[in-house]
Amino acid sequence: MADSYFQPISGFDLPRFAGVPTFMRLPHVPLDSPRISEVDIGLIGTPWDGGTTNRPGPRHGPRQLRDMSTMIRAQNGATGVRPFEAMNCADLGDVGPNPADLMDSMTRITAFYDQVVAAKIKPLTAGGDHLCSLPILRALGKAVPLGMIHFDSHTDLFHSYFNGTMFTHGTPFRRAIEEGLLDPRKVIQIGIRGTAYDFEDRDFAEAVGVTIIPIEEFHARGVLDVMAQARELVGDMPTYVTYDIDFVDPAFAPGTGTPEVGGPNSYQALQCARELAGVNIVGADLVEVSPPFDQSGATAFLGVSLMFEMLCNMVPAA
Amino acid sequence: MADSYFQPISGFDLPRFAGVPTFMRLPHVPLDSPRISEVDIGLIGTPWDGGTTNRPGPRHGPRQLRDMSTMIRAQNGATGVRPFEAMNCADLGDVGPNPADLMDSMTRITAFYDQVVAAKIKPLTAGGDHLCSLPILRALGKAVPLGMIHFDSHTDLFHSYFNGTMFTHGTPFRRAIEEGLLDPRKVIQIGIRGTAYDFEDRDFAEAVGVTIIPIEEFHARGVLDVMAQARELVGDMPTYVTYDIDFVDPAFAPGTGTPEVGGPNSYQALQCARELAGVNIVGADLVEVSPPFDQSGATAFLGVSLMFEMLCNMVPAA
Amino acid sequence: MADSYFQPISGFDLPRFAGVPTFMRLPHVPLDSPRISEVDIGLIGTPWDGGTTNRPGPRHGPRQLRDMSTMIRAQNGATGVRPFEAMNCADLGDVGPNPADLMDSMTRITAFYDQVVAAKIKPLTAGGDHLCSLPILRALGKAVPLGMIHFDSHTDLFHSYFNGTMFTHGTPFRRAIEEGLLDPRKVIQIGIRGTAYDFEDRDFAEAVGVTIIPIEEFHARGVLDVMAQARELVGDMPTYVTYDIDFVDPAFAPGTGTPEVGGPNSYQALQCARELAGVNIVGADLVEVSPPFDQSGATAFLGVSLMFEMLCNMVPAA
Amino acid sequence: MADSYFQPISGFDLPRFAGVPTFMRLPHVPLDSPRISEVDIGLIGTPWDGGTTNRPGPRHGPRQLRDMSTMIRAQNGATGVRPFEAMNCADLGDVGPNPADLMDSMTRITAFYDQVVAAKIKPLTAGGDHLCSLPILRALGKAVPLGMIHFDSHTDLFHSYFNGTMFTHGTPFRRAIEEGLLDPRKVIQIGIRGTAYDFEDRDFAEAVGVTIIPIEEFHARGVLDVMAQARELVGDMPTYVTYDIDFVDPAFAPGTGTPEVGGPNSYQALQCARELAGVNIVGADLVEVSPPFDQSGATAFLGVSLMFEMLCNMVPAA
Amino acid sequence: MADSYFQPISGFDLPRFAGVPTFMRLPHVPLDSPRISEVDIGLIGTPWDGGTTNRPGPRHGPRQLRDMSTMIRAQNGATGVRPFEAMNCADLGDVGPNPADLMDSMTRITAFYDQVVAAKIKPLTAGGDHLCSLPILRALGKAVPLGMIHFDSHTDLFHSYFNGTMFTHGTPFRRAIEEGLLDPRKVIQIGIRGTAYDFEDRDFAEAVGVTIIPIEEFHARGVLDVMAQARELVGDMPTYVTYDIDFVDPAFAPGTGTPEVGGPNSYQALQCARELAGVNIVGADLVEVSPPFDQSGATAFLGVSLMFEMLCNMVPAA
Amino acid sequence: MADSYFQPISGFDLPRFAGVPTFMRLPHVPLDSPRISEVDIGLIGTPWDGGTTNRPGPRHGPRQLRDMSTMIRAQNGATGVRPFEAMNCADLGDVGPNPADLMDSMTRITAFYDQVVAAKIKPLTAGGDHLCSLPILRALGKAVPLGMIHFDSHTDLFHSYFNGTMFTHGTPFRRAIEEGLLDPRKVIQIGIRGTAYDFEDRDFAEAVGVTIIPIEEFHARGVLDVMAQARELVGDMPTYVTYDIDFVDPAFAPGTGTPEVGGPNSYQALQCARELAGVNIVGADLVEVSPPFDQSGATAFLGVSLMFEMLCNMVPAA
Repeated sequence: MADSYFQPISGFDLPRFAGVPTFMRLPHVPLDSPRISEVDIGLIGTPWDGGTTNRPGPRHGPRQLRDMSTMIRAQNGATGVRPFEAMNCADLGDVGPNPADLMDSMTRITAFYDQVVAAKIKPLTAGGDHLCSLPILRALGKAVPLGMIHFDSHTDLFHSYFNGTMFTHGTPFRRAIEEGLLDPRKVIQIGIRGTAYDFEDRDFAEAVGVTIIPIEEFHARGVLDVMAQARELVGDMPTYVTYDIDFVDPAFAPGTGTPEVGGPNSYQALQCARELAGVNIVGADLVEVSPPFDQSGATAFLGVSLMFEMLCNMVPAA
Repeated sequence: MADSYFQPISGFDLPRFAGVPTFMRLPHVPLDSPRISEVDIGLIGTPWDGGTTNRPGPRHGPRQLRDMSTMIRAQNGATGVRPFEAMNCADLGDVGPNPADLMDSMTRITAFYDQVVAAKIKPLTAGGDHLCSLPILRALGKAVPLGMIHFDSHTDLFHSYFNGTMFTHGTPFRRAIEEGLLDPRKVIQIGIRGTAYDFEDRDFAEAVGVTIIPIEEFHARGVLDVMAQARELVGDMPTYVTYDIDFVDPAFAPGTGTPEVGGPNSYQALQCARELAGVNIVGADLVEVSPPFDQSGATAFLGVSLMFEMLCNMVPAA
Repeated sequence: MADSYFQPISGFDLPRFAGVPTFMRLPHVPLDSPRISEVDIGLIGTPWDGGTTNRPGPRHGPRQLRDMSTMIRAQNGATGVRPFEAMNCADLGDVGPNPADLMDSMTRITAFYDQVVAAKIKPLTAGGDHLCSLPILRALGKAVPLGMIHFDSHTDLFHSYFNGTMFTHGTPFRRAIEEGLLDPRKVIQIGIRGTAYDFEDRDFAEAVGVTIIPIEEFHARGVLDVMAQARELVGDMPTYVTYDIDFVDPAFAPGTGTPEVGGPNSYQALQCARELAGVNIVGADLVEVSPPFDQSGATAFLGVSLMFEMLCNMVPAA
Repeated sequence: MADSYFQPISGFDLPRFAGVPTFMRLPHVPLDSPRISEVDIGLIGTPWDGGTTNRPGPRHGPRQLRDMSTMIRAQNGATGVRPFEAMNCADLGDVGPNPADLMDSMTRITAFYDQVVAAKIKPLTAGGDHLCSLPILRALGKAVPLGMIHFDSHTDLFHSYFNGTMFTHGTPFRRAIEEGLLDPRKVIQIGIRGTAYDFEDRDFAEAVGVTIIPIEEFHARGVLDVMAQARELVGDMPTYVTYDIDFVDPAFAPGTGTPEVGGPNSYQALQCARELAGVNIVGADLVEVSPPFDQSGATAFLGVSLMFEMLCNMVPAA
Repeated sequence: MADSYFQPISGFDLPRFAGVPTFMRLPHVPLDSPRISEVDIGLIGTPWDGGTTNRPGPRHGPRQLRDMSTMIRAQNGATGVRPFEAMNCADLGDVGPNPADLMDSMTRITAFYDQVVAAKIKPLTAGGDHLCSLPILRALGKAVPLGMIHFDSHTDLFHSYFNGTMFTHGTPFRRAIEEGLLDPRKVIQIGIRGTAYDFEDRDFAEAVGVTIIPIEEFHARGVLDVMAQARELVGDMPTYVTYDIDFVDPAFAPGTGTPEVGGPNSYQALQCARELAGVNIVGADLVEVSPPFDQSGATAFLGVSLMFEMLCNMVPAA
Repeated sequence: MADSYFQPISGFDLPRFAGVPTFMRLPHVPLDSPRISEVDIGLIGTPWDGGTTNRPGPRHGPRQLRDMSTMIRAQNGATGVRPFEAMNCADLGDVGPNPADLMDSMTRITAFYDQVVAAKIKPLTAGGDHLCSLPILRALGKAVPLGMIHFDSHTDLFHSYFNGTMFTHGTPFRRAIEEGLLDPRKVIQIGIRGTAYDFEDRDFAEAVGVTIIPIEEFHARGVLDVMAQARELVGDMPTYVTYDIDFVDPAFAPGTGTPEVGGPNSYQALQCARELAGVNIVGADLVEVSPPFDQSGATAFLGVSLMFEMLCNMVPAA
């Protein structure tokens, strides 16, 4: 039986534009709250973009994602899943970053997620830029290397930038593989496209066994076929899902820092998340929403719609 | 032979950005004009959004739709139809609403359309929010229940909001069915999607015989197949067409109050309207264009493009 | 000694873009919270614009004002006042309106403020359109007619609109005077300007003794002189302060529904609020911020800067 | 007694966002209308920017000015003047330009205004770029050279551009003086500022007797003093008033192609127009509003507010 | 071996937002530079929109395209082509137009391209409106009529506008065919759609042998089939490629003056350019990007992505 | 005699929207250019915002400032100064930062300015956030502590942020004073305002002798009086001028990360820069222009207008 404390406020009771905006209108339950132990899934913001090498802004993502998430209702229209009745979900608030110190910020994020893991809460994160995934994985992948399903237009597998800088939003999964947080043979990257400086990242992927589905292949095979491969790859192993909003075509998600044209539309984007059904998701994130590049909130609304689809696949099937 | 009075001004004579903007550059023929009796199809604005429960703005729709409609020319590029030569079309102006009194506004709209019906003019309406359709149907469906083809991401079949409020933009067709203005077994709703509070609306639809085509089915079957079903359902009975711009994916139509991601693209949106050929359309509307959420006019331009397609199916085939 | 529970989160600890946005980063203390009895000043949102006759949007005001209010710090740079140390301040949340029922919404607002008054909390409200002030005054002015200092470009003293509609954002203070909630001889309206249909409102003001300072007089005399008159008029009687953001010139506050050019600049706008020092303020509001007309947040940031100045004059002088 | 046909529609009857937008909600009376002979003052659009050397867009000005002009009411709040009762005012529509032929466009404009002059209608024009003033002056200044009061940040007195191009929006008044349409000793230019290629224009002005009030002098002396000089200069001679919106500081009027920072605020801008009282105005224009650079309509709203002030000084004093 | 002088600056060395923006971060090599003789492919801006009959702005296109082009990297992610290593590419700067003289501007453009042709440089042009293509073709097609592959929603084959104006952005290819610059039987126009005044342009096309692929046919057959036909049509003859950004659906390319809904998405748009492989391209352009209608730069980013794809097909296959 | 190589391109020859945009259309002369030794004043971009603790974006400043600077002409309209004839000015390009490494970026900036100093070039810098001033001062103030005239709404004199972070855009001048780069008794900060966490920065200023002119004093005394004090303070000592765009009221300069309402208008902003005449300026900067918060370019245009005024005071009086 669902606990009413953990039910989102209905727009039939309080209009959706009203109220203090928490993720999906869930209760705000900080880590030091007495009710934290009841939480099954924690929605968390990582408002940090210190790894961004191009156009900044994702530090503002969690705020706008919370705002637009008040348009999300309680039931999945396509599948009928009611996630908030299936498990106790809550907004755990934001990790406080240090905008002027990259290493300190990563330390803070890992420390926060160590507590989340200790509390046996599955995190669903709203970024932040893609470097946020690395300190999260340092908490989640500490015990055993994880599988990963990765939606993106970039591999984020580069070695370094600017003459030796190892930590940027273009390097997190190179680091995560090097640190043993991910099992590269159980990592699949979907939607890769755009111009490149060179193929150093793809060569690395091939060398360590990461599977890449370029966008041309994605469009040719279709969502269902690609996602079947992804599910098969990770099987039932503990798997992280990371969803960079720039996976989606910029007409649907203009609010991001490194867009690449030619991506999937919003229906395909939703389908990808929906087709995660059955995956053993131990954590997920939606990153790179950059409000300064889309003040309308359209990108953030797509972002929270995707978070909701992922959430529906993080709860036990009814 | 077409009456030159009823021909739109050509952009080859007067540039499209010039002149007082009427719908599609047609003559402005108010209800009290001496030429009103010559009008076959009346384009009408209902600048009212009193039923909006979320983000307001459609009251500004007719103004922006008129503005962008000056980009519409005289001939359908795909079918060759020249509607303004086929029938006398005119801009009948706007129904004056009362923004601070919901019931008064509905009365005013019905009174206006009663006159339109009396003058044997087929109305093509630019909303306004979707509650506008109810007072229009009260005029058009007075004599006999109508069939309805309904493009939308929402059913608008809810019973009530906010503890008993019966008239909102989420309830018009529930009321219209209850009032006998529509024959529910001859109503088809296409494109339904998005998160839900619950499925109370869908349960009602099933109970009374309304056909719902969820977006997943729409994408799987394709426009042509779905529209064949729609045409078959209504046959040659008098049919109302209601087109909520939020049927279209928000990347193509961002200027609306309750967007839902994962919708059709603009080509599919046009096809849907084009595939109404042969339907016995007694009236049509295009609603929920909200200019404050798209000052660029792109949504309104799509809106008037759809109005033009519907108009081409409201005139007799050549 | 200030209670740390009621202190806002510092941007030196948590960056200002992070965290769930409450008004001025204060604790969220709903009316049913156990700590409500400790609150001295309550910041409240009234997200409702049902009285708007022109361009809607202020229902979205509280959300955006909360967002931008995270840029406000703890101390007044000009006066040195530290309001959060002087009194216990908290975000009481929003009053839930009924967007489709004007009368119901007014009832809900008055009911909420009746509770606020009963709890001996002074309200500082973020609107909402200007009709929100009427149901608030029905709670605050119930016992004894209040004085009022009113910043606006419109008098909001009209009798009715649209052939007899008595409740719109152009009529609240006509109603409040008729209902005995305000003592008209102790009401001053500052900044009145713009074109008019007629001077019926000004004739009423003159008849009942309301003082009007047109913008021409304001610019000629200057802020300090006008505000001295305002303070003298209300003396030490219980006084309500109502601040319509359209008082300020639209270059500084574009996000509003009925702008009038030729208004004060932002420095004068601040000065006006600052010169309320010594007034016996029993409640205050900042209304008509309309986010759809200023997605940048600049208007809201000015709005919360004005709220902070008013707040500094609602606490006891150090 | 005012003719009700020529009265604008009140926003108390029809909300201001409703209806086909004509200038100030006046009747649309084309030159070939039977009622044209009753018109005293004609509001006319010249949607043309063929003389623009920098950022184009003023061709869209009349459309947006009409839209925003529906926010203008019937009475001047500062002076009490009710222009629509003093004289018959009407929207004469737009002059149709040829966007791809500069000379043809100028010919079309002069031909239109020749008819306006013949009908003894005083024109109040909404541009279009500043080159529009030249073909207008060719009609109005044909009989006798006019005086001119000119608000602008540029003199528009240059000889030529781009190696010999004589007709641009930087040259109209050089041409008008050369053609004998203006008496240069009775021309005053107020607000001149910004960087310059050289002072060739100012040297010409000095040589022929044009009075220039640079912005530094304007700010030092104040509106009232400068306008007294302007009124004295033109005395009671037939005078044209030309108001370039870029006279106003770009914070108040961002929607223009060649902004210059450091200009007057909107209150000073209004005062300038108001202080034209007593001038024998034979025609006036408001030019260079460029909607693509201000989709919000704020610039256009200031523009029509200025047009209304000028209009109030084109009717006889009560 | 690639000359390092002609290599673009890498974003791994200098972040992409830094530096003076040239096309694709290539060296700026004006026509009078000593290194001009080493250039194989010249990227050129034609910032002129004098032929625009509707909404202006493409004169600002080259500036914004240069800005966004700094996001383009060195290698084609789909094909692996590295164009800057295959041939010497450079930014030749802009042709200086005369914004107030249409004929002078066309003369200036042709004069510039005559020099480009003389220097044996293949031009890749960033417009400007579509009339720019005519003076370019006068230089490129002087010796022998060219084939042309034309992506657009309009044929641009009209005879004249506004009572005899022969040169507008709706007439360039009518003129080019009349002047013998194109072989009409070797011209294919892909994507034609939208409403029409009449089919005079299509009748002309049919009469002279131009192939038109309406958008309905395009969507039905798919990119690959249509492009195979295009390649077959032109064979190995010298061919010009002209790409009007309004070919793409306005959701993907809102920044243009004459959008038509129902077009291809960005992936199809890319595919079209990619499928030019093997065509003997003697020059290409990307026109009608209008920054005032998309300040976000999204349209320009799609534009430069398409320019990069075309560029990859202008260099010899590896 | 002015060297034509160093003259900006005139808009009378090449329209201002055309051409590769360098600062003020000056030649691009990198540090390794053979002509670098002829340069007297170097305009330099520091596209870096690594010290930003709130809303990022100034890294994009130099690009947009270059773009808008093409609207600047050759002569000061108020003073007649022609700076490009007085001294050889050039665009030296941008310093390449490391967006993911704060310390590395500061090192890179100082290294660049060390070369500039060695070449005896006076730098006029376009930021970047305000932390950029520190590494610049490390080059310019190495020999002897400088005086400084500082326009800003913040003192930027804080000790540290986020529990010990010493380098942010709120600390540069604390560090510069500590490092002996500035003589604090010869530093004046003008325009300080806004809410504060505490007055730790002001206490430091008082302790070391920095002069602060709060905005209230600025408005009360006026520009001329305040600037006379500033000039007197620094006398003829080598002085740095640092101009944070957030000194100006956000209505005039919305594109910045930490706006504070109540600031000077654009005319006062210009006057401040103009009143630097006679100061011995060894370098100057204009920082904190953040294009993502003002895509219109209005803030950047004000920024370059201010840079031009400063430049006019960096050349010898005629």
